[in-house]
Amino acid sequence: MADEEAGADKDPEFMTSLARGLAVIRCFAERREPLTIAQAAQETGFSRPAVRRCLHTLVCLGYAARIGHRYALQPKALALGYAYLSSSPLASRAQPMLDALRDEIGESCSLGVCEEEQVYYIARAESSRIMSIALRAGSRLPLYPTSMGRILLAARSRREQEAYLRSTPLVALTDRTETDADALLAILAETAERGHAIVDQELEVGLRSVAVPVHQGGKVVAALNIGTQASRVSMADLRSRLLPALRRVATDLSRAGLFG
Amino acid sequence: MADEEAGADKDPEFMTSLARGLAVIRCFAERREPLTIAQAAQETGFSRPAVRRCLHTLVCLGYAARIGHRYALQPKALALGYAYLSSSPLASRAQPMLDALRDEIGESCSLGVCEEEQVYYIARAESSRIMSIALRAGSRLPLYPTSMGRILLAARSRREQEAYLRSTPLVALTDRTETDADALLAILAETAERGHAIVDQELEVGLRSVAVPVHQGGKVVAALNIGTQASRVSMADLRSRLLPALRRVATDLSRAGLFG
Repeated sequence: MADEEAGADKDPEFMTSLARGLAVIRCFAERREPLTIAQAAQETGFSRPAVRRCLHTLVCLGYAARIGHRYALQPKALALGYAYLSSSPLASRAQPMLDALRDEIGESCSLGVCEEEQVYYIARAESSRIMSIALRAGSRLPLYPTSMGRILLAARSRREQEAYLRSTPLVALTDRTETDADALLAILAETAERGHAIVDQELEVGLRSVAVPVHQGGKVVAALNIGTQASRVSMADLRSRLLPALRRVATDLSRAGLFG
Repeated sequence: MADEEAGADKDPEFMTSLARGLAVIRCFAERREPLTIAQAAQETGFSRPAVRRCLHTLVCLGYAARIGHRYALQPKALALGYAYLSSSPLASRAQPMLDALRDEIGESCSLGVCEEEQVYYIARAESSRIMSIALRAGSRLPLYPTSMGRILLAARSRREQEAYLRSTPLVALTDRTETDADALLAILAETAERGHAIVDQELEVGLRSVAVPVHQGGKVVAALNIGTQASRVSMADLRSRLLPALRRVATDLSRAGLFG
């Protein structure tokens, strides 16, 4: 997390201690047990005294709690993510639309944006759980093997796509995952042309999904998707029944406008 | 938000700039449009230069973006709340249990804890939207007119309940909302005895809900609830069908243990 402090030296307005505190909060993600100061220091790359001051401050403010010589985040930390969800016009307008689409088609729907070269879920309406991992607002997945990721990548120039593919480890998550950079470039070109992306069990066996772009001011700002069970929904059904419903909601969301 | 800086004077280990940055993030909650520095300064009670430095740092780190002379939070801020959700054993274990309960009974289920004298939603499985407001992880509601709030209050001593009722404005949210402190104390005593709370349209017209406690180490740490439409689910149905299902999940969650 050294980049959390990038610019700290040159920029007198940059608050290093705020950057460190946020990095310390984030280092708890996915950890199933409270962390020691040493673990948080290792995770963030900061010194133990620096981490200790951050955790002390977070405990004083109620964002973390001390349990013996370990620390755990507290529910108050949720308020930080909620500040985004409740102030983002895209996330707040999308949620009821996703809920309605989920009720109509009986499948899970999500809205994702690209942040830090990953798909960030900013809204989700879940029908029965079909994935092995729990997805919710704040979850992240890689771009290359997901339908939303391919929509977001397809909006970039070929040069940007190549740069992404060079800098990203292309891992086979199932035996169907496309990991060849040239083949992925061809898929992205096709995705841009068709205006939708279908991913069939490349992220997880049994999971089939379709995504379309959401536009604002002529630019792709997000991707909307439906995830289904491959055993229950055929590719033909995905195209003929789910894709038109998805396009309708994406158009509504694109028209809704971001601010105002 | 003056209390965000409490102790800053006396405690050399307290990082005032981290406290300020977190308060600035939170001041965006519920705001539907980007904020100016002046608005954020007014909201937080900090000086404009202090707020400007916080926002500058948040923009450098990707948590906020500048739009003209205004600022908006960015999806990366979600990662802060997600760090809690994905590291909290209570929140992560509850989510699949709530999803399964929602699928079984066809009603929305939530898990809430008490933070800052409010019910904080830390997990939710939503069936069709029945409330006028969108509830999700991070949402907050008052304690006195909600079934989860009454479960959390009922676990306190009578003296603590009285202190809460004295310091909280008891507002009639519908014409059924109980706002009399003595009547609420009697309801809380009854709630503690019965081990469940039923609230019938006191929070919102048309909304009926039932909640039970989740225990850890002999203490009430959270409340689990089911919210239904009053027009569709009778009080008798709530007691005979939904309450037993809710109790079963609360017992499973209490047994699951917080850590380990």
